[in-house]
This record gives sequence, structure tokens and C-alpha cells, in this order.
Amino acid sequence: MGELLYSGKAKQMWTTEDPDLLRVVYLDQATMLNGKRKDHFVGKGTAANDISTLVFEYLIRKGIPTHFVKRLSPTEELVKKCEMIRLEFVTRNIVAGHFASRFGLKEGTPLDQPVEETFYKSDELDDPFANESDAIAIQACTANEYQQCWELARRCNVLLTALFAKAGMKLVDFKLEFGKLADGTLVLADEFSPDNCRLWDRETNAHLDKDVFRKNLGDITTTYDEVYERLQKVVMEENDD
Amino acid sequence: MGELLYSGKAKQMWTTEDPDLLRVVYLDQATMLNGKRKDHFVGKGTAANDISTLVFEYLIRKGIPTHFVKRLSPTEELVKKCEMIRLEFVTRNIVAGHFASRFGLKEGTPLDQPVEETFYKSDELDDPFANESDAIAIQACTANEYQQCWELARRCNVLLTALFAKAGMKLVDFKLEFGKLADGTLVLADEFSPDNCRLWDRETNAHLDKDVFRKNLGDITTTYDEVYERLQKVVMEENDD
Repeated sequence: MGELLYSGKAKQMWTTEDPDLLRVVYLDQATMLNGKRKDHFVGKGTAANDISTLVFEYLIRKGIPTHFVKRLSPTEELVKKCEMIRLEFVTRNIVAGHFASRFGLKEGTPLDQPVEETFYKSDELDDPFANESDAIAIQACTANEYQQCWELARRCNVLLTALFAKAGMKLVDFKLEFGKLADGTLVLADEFSPDNCRLWDRETNAHLDKDVFRKNLGDITTTYDEVYERLQKVVMEENDD
Repeated sequence: MGELLYSGKAKQMWTTEDPDLLRVVYLDQATMLNGKRKDHFVGKGTAANDISTLVFEYLIRKGIPTHFVKRLSPTEELVKKCEMIRLEFVTRNIVAGHFASRFGLKEGTPLDQPVEETFYKSDELDDPFANESDAIAIQACTANEYQQCWELARRCNVLLTALFAKAGMKLVDFKLEFGKLADGTLVLADEFSPDNCRLWDRETNAHLDKDVFRKNLGDITTTYDEVYERLQKVVMEENDD
């Protein structure tokens, strides 16, 4: 089984026999308000793992360096061990959520240029915003790492916006995390699932993400399964070409 | 008298006979928590005007473009009319205040590089943080203006840190605002007084700024008068050279 290194809101990290590899376990659980509300959903871990595996494999094919090695089981994947950068890199393509309320803007307004915001990962400090000079001052990363992470995040935004558009979804906003491998290479890490992004149906603007849970709009597992099926169809068509 | 254009927490702006010039009146008042606490202090307006006049004249001699024209009376100054950029440019040289609590850092820790944070000026939104991409998205300024303002702010930081050091004070952090003249030139605007910065005595770290009011540490007018006297001595010595 290995040793439990980390138990988070939606997944766990375990050591493996190889010191450079870790096993991720996706949990059947969703939380909000920094863990203050927590619910159990049968199949949600599998759905999140399905989507994240598909997205990471897609990004790897397009040349993005990541921590991902392979899917191990419906709820598990194998990843390279990273020293995580304690920042969340949030890209926004359409006004929604915290960004809308912070500036008193209308939800759904497309942004001419993506908005790029960085937050310091700290439950006790409630993930405060941290721009480049903040991140350097608190030693979360170097200036060079900050710039490199944003360059990767920008490439991911272009690739993922196109992928989700083909699957009939708007990629409204999303959060990425990065880590450093033993040799210092910066890679995309963590996961990419509707837990960490907003996806709206292209036609109806229906929520296809964790807002279904946050706003009690329906069953989260059913929603995540639909996102996966739509993405899988696009990827299979691409692979056929 | 002209027409009252704006009445803020510590000053008013009035029109003059010249449409390109405005009269600023410094009030004998201090506020905190976005105006939720407000107190009256005899002489505080004069002290803030004295300091701001001295600082702006100093910065102008060093080549910084500003809105400042001249002091009109103990509580009034004449300034060029600007279209204000609705952002606060905050530079931090030493950990204090909101920055300390946001990241759980120890007050008084010097920062290797200045921290640069921008906030959107909006009482109803409680002045939310706004990085460059936010500022562009909400149309507070262009990317070019944002960079130009920060270049000016950096030059001000170098000049003012040296000025206050000669006067036996640490410039812990400060807020600047910028505006555009009719011809589009970006200039330093607003004021520079201990209302908008943290100044600590070099030897004792005693507060010589609005924290005296925020923390009930003493009389704000006496403190501001001392800051003015210290600065005046440095400037007179410089002018004698």
C-alpha cells in the first residue's frame, strides 16, 4: 500500500516502492468553503480520475511536461514525485465566481484577454492572492519559476479551450498547480477535473463542474461522467485522424 | 470658491477659474476601516499638506512628473486636473499591516526586493486586489499605463526611501496614485502623507504615521508635525549644499 503522504479534500497521495513515483487515489468526495462543507458521492473519484487522465494524456501529446505517468485503476493514477510550488495559477476566460463578485461584474461576460491570478496555497490563511512580488517575498518560488509556470499555464489554456470547445463546452476558468521534479524540471502537476475549473455547456450555459455541487444543481457524478464522455468522443475522433 | 468636485476621507477637490487646475483642501480628519471610524484632529490637515507639499516638491526636483503646482495656504494646494487611474499602487519595503496578516509573516521583517501590489479603488467593493491582467480586464488602465505607473512608483521608492532614511525614518510601505493630464501624460497625483504610508523611527521603530491613530498610540497631529520637521531639516540641508 505504501505510506500515506497527504490526504486532501478530494484525493490522497501514497508512496510506492519507487521513491520517484507516487500513487494518487481519487476520493468519492467533494468539499467547498475550504472544506467546511464536505459530501460523499459514489463514483465521483472515478469520474474525476477519468477526466484528469484524459486531460493530462492530451496535454502530454501536445508537448506539455507533466507529472503524470499512467492510470492504475478506476480511482488511482501513478505520478512522478514533485516538490510542489505552493501557488494556484488561476486563468479566467469568462467572468464568473469570485472574480465577478470581487469587481461587481456580470457573470458570463467574455474577457478580451485571459485574466491570470495567483494564490498562495494555505488553508489556514484561506489561500490569499499572491502576485509575482508576493510569491518571491514569501519564497513560494523564484521570479523565473513564476514566469515559467505562467508560460505553461498559457499554453494549457490555448490547448484546453480548444479541446473543451470541440466537446461543446466553454472553459470559463481553471486552476493549475506546478511542481519540480528531482532534476529541477517544472511540470504541470495536481489534477485537471471539474473540481478545479468552471465548464459551461456551449449552448445552454448549464454548469458542468463543481458548481453543480456548490449550488445544489444536480448530481455531481452524473455531470462529471457527461464531461468525460464528451471529451472522450473528441479525443477518439482526433486519434482516428 | 469654485465647485466641490469630490469630498473624500481626508481631503476635498474644488474647481478653480482655470479649467485645468483644481484646489485641494486637506481636512482635519482621519478615517479608518474604509471610513467606518472617523475622527477630527485640529491641525492634521495642515500637517498632511505640509508633508505632501514637501514630498511632491522634492520628487519634482528629482525629475518625477506630478500633478502638483503649488501650496496655496496651510490647508490648500493647487494641482493640475487629471483623469485619475482607479488603482492604488502599494510598495512594501518591510513586512507590516495587511501584508503581514495575509501571509502570516512577522511585522518588521525587511524584504529583499520591494513587494508591489495594486488594488482597485472602490469603497463599495472594499478596494479589491487587482493585478495587471485584472486591471486591464476591468478597464482601470492599459497594460502600458500599468507598467508606466509601476516604473514611476519604483523611482519614487528609491528617492523616498533615501529621503526618509536621512530624516531618521524607515519607509515601511506606501500607496501612490497616478493620473493622466489632458495631453495624456501620466503623473503622480493624490498626496504623499503619513495617511498613506508607514513610517517607523529608525532607532525605536516608533510609528510616525496613521497607525498612531489606528492603534490609539498618541496624537496624530503632533506625530505628523514631527515627520514634517524632520523632513524639512533634511531638505534645507540639501538645498544649502
